[in-house]
Amino acid sequence: MSKNTLNNAFVLWFTGLSGSGKSTLADRVNQLLEGKNLKLQRLDGDILRGLFPSTGFTKQERDDHIKRVGYMASVLQKHGVCVIASFISPYSEARNFVRNMCKNFIEVYVDCPLDECINRDVKGLYHKAQAGEIKNFTGIDDPYEPPENPEILVDTQKLSLEESAEVIMNYLEKYF
Amino acid sequence: MSKNTLNNAFVLWFTGLSGSGKSTLADRVNQLLEGKNLKLQRLDGDILRGLFPSTGFTKQERDDHIKRVGYMASVLQKHGVCVIASFISPYSEARNFVRNMCKNFIEVYVDCPLDECINRDVKGLYHKAQAGEIKNFTGIDDPYEPPENPEILVDTQKLSLEESAEVIMNYLEKYF
Repeated sequence: MSKNTLNNAFVLWFTGLSGSGKSTLADRVNQLLEGKNLKLQRLDGDILRGLFPSTGFTKQERDDHIKRVGYMASVLQKHGVCVIASFISPYSEARNFVRNMCKNFIEVYVDCPLDECINRDVKGLYHKAQAGEIKNFTGIDDPYEPPENPEILVDTQKLSLEESAEVIMNYLEKYF
Repeated sequence: MSKNTLNNAFVLWFTGLSGSGKSTLADRVNQLLEGKNLKLQRLDGDILRGLFPSTGFTKQERDDHIKRVGYMASVLQKHGVCVIASFISPYSEARNFVRNMCKNFIEVYVDCPLDECINRDVKGLYHKAQAGEIKNFTGIDDPYEPPENPEILVDTQKLSLEESAEVIMNYLEKYF
């Protein structure tokens, strides 16, 4: 029987630059968790912004967005749902706001050098940001504050997707 | 044993003017539901706005707020949590957006004539709105679009709190 009671649901929060691999990794971990008899909810920055397109990219708007999503995560966690969240969430203060709101908050720093993210440029956004077509782009003309004490750090330049997922699954072992 | 499975959790959505009695009634219904072995989550406009103070009162901001909260309600419902939500939610379109997103959406129109709400003026807000100290105040210089086909209508000018709560509890009977 699963140990997933109201007490040990968790909030797994992926933070990192655009292109660092947050969403892909969060999707993979979500997939691996599906066999564990947990209630799962995936929350992703791009998807939520799609639902609520007027959320902008100033510091205030970013922070509000993260705080709202963090509140949502905390309520889900309280009801026994494990939340797998992936958001650039560039500001420490907003991430800590979420941390303080949630029980069993697990910060996953998806660490990938900016140069590598620019090289990948999966969505072509860095190109646009460098050309000035997009403003307030994290890493280009907007800051990213790396987590100081994340529960998990994965270096996606060095580790493969499966290796990164394994690091996280090993950490989560105690919740199953 | 409770019938509250993932399938029959509901979203009970109270809409109405400021001062109509939405929050008080929603609180009372929430209290009555506490004995029913359901997972419950109360969401209230004033409380959520307090958490996210930069949400404004233009039509766009109101709609965004309601859509975000509605999404949150839909996710909770999906995980078997019954949501008791009270929001002025003055625009039909935004309420219908939430309705279409949620399973078992129950719209409760807390119907109270504007004059009566102004007379009550529990929070002193109508006075300020009429003096022009608050802008975009629903009923004064901002519209309220009454629900056309709410699942439940309670007239809080005619019914007492307990009578209103009873109407709602009777409707909910099929979910227990």
